[in-house]
Amino acid sequence: MTETVISSHSREVVIGFDRPFVVIGERINPTGRKQLAAEMAAGDFSRVIRDAEEQVAAGAQMLDVNAGIPLADEPAILARTVELVQSLTDVPLSIDSSIIAALEAGLSVYRGKALVNSVTGEEESMEAVLPLVKRHGAAVVAISNDETGISHDPDVRFAIAERIVQRAADHGIPASDVVVDPLVMPIGAVGQAGRQVFALCHRLQKELRVNTTCGASNVSFGLPNRNGINAAFMSMAIASGMTSAITNPLHQEIMTAIRAADVMMGHDPDCMRWIGRFREPPATGADGSEGRGRRQTRRRRVTG
Amino acid sequence: MTETVISSHSREVVIGFDRPFVVIGERINPTGRKQLAAEMAAGDFSRVIRDAEEQVAAGAQMLDVNAGIPLADEPAILARTVELVQSLTDVPLSIDSSIIAALEAGLSVYRGKALVNSVTGEEESMEAVLPLVKRHGAAVVAISNDETGISHDPDVRFAIAERIVQRAADHGIPASDVVVDPLVMPIGAVGQAGRQVFALCHRLQKELRVNTTCGASNVSFGLPNRNGINAAFMSMAIASGMTSAITNPLHQEIMTAIRAADVMMGHDPDCMRWIGRFREPPATGADGSEGRGRRQTRRRRVTG
Repeated sequence: MTETVISSHSREVVIGFDRPFVVIGERINPTGRKQLAAEMAAGDFSRVIRDAEEQVAAGAQMLDVNAGIPLADEPAILARTVELVQSLTDVPLSIDSSIIAALEAGLSVYRGKALVNSVTGEEESMEAVLPLVKRHGAAVVAISNDETGISHDPDVRFAIAERIVQRAADHGIPASDVVVDPLVMPIGAVGQAGRQVFALCHRLQKELRVNTTCGASNVSFGLPNRNGINAAFMSMAIASGMTSAITNPLHQEIMTAIRAADVMMGHDPDCMRWIGRFREPPATGADGSEGRGRRQTRRRRVTG
Repeated sequence: MTETVISSHSREVVIGFDRPFVVIGERINPTGRKQLAAEMAAGDFSRVIRDAEEQVAAGAQMLDVNAGIPLADEPAILARTVELVQSLTDVPLSIDSSIIAALEAGLSVYRGKALVNSVTGEEESMEAVLPLVKRHGAAVVAISNDETGISHDPDVRFAIAERIVQRAADHGIPASDVVVDPLVMPIGAVGQAGRQVFALCHRLQKELRVNTTCGASNVSFGLPNRNGINAAFMSMAIASGMTSAITNPLHQEIMTAIRAADVMMGHDPDCMRWIGRFREPPATGADGSEGRGRRQTRRRRVTG
């Protein structure tokens, strides 16, 4: 039973085979969000604050923080964003950049044990990112592609994941601190994308014994009713052994699918979290006041 | 690749590992529906007609027909219901009774190759039902319990399924005409119910190479937001290899989860069914007429 512990200064989150699924909020990311990118580059973090608060309220147990803005000083902006988000919430963060100096800057201000997002199976990436992860005592997302790109063969992707885990061990990072991303392709473009990921999640848990994550929203790219696809994908991935995902917790269908999947996996003992969230409130009192049950249900909704 | 062919006089449905999931509408069943029971016993089939038409319109590829009314003449009522439903729709039927004479009566009026629901691993059940199935050239649902009841041990349930498949072969019924029900317990009562079923579906497909079904609505018994649980359960069961289910197609969350799971399993080539159902219609014309796309989408919605 593998457990990956990620922490802030005051809170721990455990990603694990026998744990509730961990949702990592994807919203603090200027990629494809022009307005957010312009604001962050100009030093306006109001939208970052809103994104952080809303995602935690919706049930994200962690937040991904990315500051990838073309031509901007990414290391400085990422560090500032990490500090800001940590001042707002105690959920642990995933520090997300493809630039080593930005990861370094984010990690150097981070309080706790971060999740570094990400290393790939490329030599250059492994030799730059893994020493950084080790030095900061962090965990790391390992993406199963290498210099040859993303293979359509699940066996090749598994082998790359295995290689990263081995290299991490060479650097003194245990397998429990490597969270593998098996890579989720858009199902509209790659018809076998779902089966590939489900089979990989199963093997990564049974054979390599590592936790898993993915950028989940990608799977429905280009299709109508994306939340319908994303919700089914999440529960199917959880059934296959996936233990966390970077996704949008503001989409209720997705969160309901994840919570129901936790119930079905036996990760919500006696269904107490499900019942607390969805039980019918008692009828409104004769004086028009809300019953106690309803207030409690609402409070739970906010704190996730 | 196992395929179970069920048919009416004019239509075939194939349950199979590489086929879209088959939804068997559960509604024509007086169990727990007092009014329907009283009406059917009194010869009023108006609600049966509505249930049949609505379920087919909602996307059921088959209908389950049950006439289990205490103290009523179940064989006569079941035969009459089968004839009536076959006069309304050409979707194949599952003929559902625990009384052998009722199964016999239903089968004797059925036009096509029916699915008999069900045989268990009990000696008495196997020796009464399997000859009937063989004589009528039908397929059969095999429920994985026996004289000792329902085991909590998935290995025991697998062994019972194996025994029924073997006994069916002794009676000349091929494994492809045995659809195993691994038995879905309420998750609120049995915390491991989900994992048991998922593991069983996987083994039943890989090792016994049979199709599977279940009474899916049972899983959420006693919980709030039952459709939320049922929807996640369906997609997780499909990811684990389940190929059909007896459920309520009138619940849209469940049908959306099943259709999305078909997409994710690669059973909706190029996502054409998904896109046809959910794509945005073109804007309304200047003369107030609906665009062609919207009319088409509506028609697809009705024919499922």
